[in-house]
Amino acid sequence: MNNDDKRLLRIAYDEAKSGFDEGGCPIGSVLARGSEVVSQGRNQRVQKGDPIAHGEMDALRKAGRQKTYSDTTLYTSLSPCMMCSGTIIQFGIPRVVIGENKNFGGNEEFLRSKGVEVIIVNDPECIALMSKFIDEKPELWAEDIAE
Amino acid sequence: MNNDDKRLLRIAYDEAKSGFDEGGCPIGSVLARGSEVVSQGRNQRVQKGDPIAHGEMDALRKAGRQKTYSDTTLYTSLSPCMMCSGTIIQFGIPRVVIGENKNFGGNEEFLRSKGVEVIIVNDPECIALMSKFIDEKPELWAEDIAE
Repeated sequence: MNNDDKRLLRIAYDEAKSGFDEGGCPIGSVLARGSEVVSQGRNQRVQKGDPIAHGEMDALRKAGRQKTYSDTTLYTSLSPCMMCSGTIIQFGIPRVVIGENKNFGGNEEFLRSKGVEVIIVNDPECIALMSKFIDEKPELWAEDIAE
Repeated sequence: MNNDDKRLLRIAYDEAKSGFDEGGCPIGSVLARGSEVVSQGRNQRVQKGDPIAHGEMDALRKAGRQKTYSDTTLYTSLSPCMMCSGTIIQFGIPRVVIGENKNFGGNEEFLRSKGVEVIIVNDPECIALMSKFIDEKPELWAEDIAE
């Protein structure tokens, strides 16, 4: 993880924090090309009633049509679910920086098996925010991961 | 495949045809609970500039927040890509009816390995519509499957 990674993951965290403050699932994401933000987003389940808008998906939607993703990195405050992991593979995103996988994870090896570089930071702020959310709204969290 | 399946797949085809007429990627989808349509949608890459809105994803978005997907079937005019396959698994959709996998496919066994019942119809109308699109707009199709 380099300094750009730290800065871009912090933007993903700030998106997650905004989602928390809105009463939503606090998971944020950034799509970057090198050091530049292409788009940033956050989980919109509560805010828009949209079950497919996980943080990563919201960022990818906001990026619009891209000619290629082969030169991009996806930052996410929380380890990607199977929807988001499948999307990373489908879109050909070669590198993913994950804020934390203590509160949710399990698809990291699947991503690696498809050639994706996966960096797991386990950032204390990302862990604390997600832990707080799961403690406060366990039913919403269960809904978001379809449990 | 029963009569409900035939009727519901036809709605997915009609969505695909509407997408074709709009100049988009002609792939349509229906989420059904038993014989009832929960939602229907179609690929919105061109219409909304939205790269995550494959037909299946558009239908799932339009369905809004669901308590469970365990009693649903997802119909799609074309075999699901890895994004949509990951979503089917993440959401716990137990049954998928695929209009055709002649023009695109490859994730059927992945779905089955995760316990999803996969029915491949290879409906002539679905095949013909998709073939026509790929012939007419190969660049748009390549973009939609990130090639």
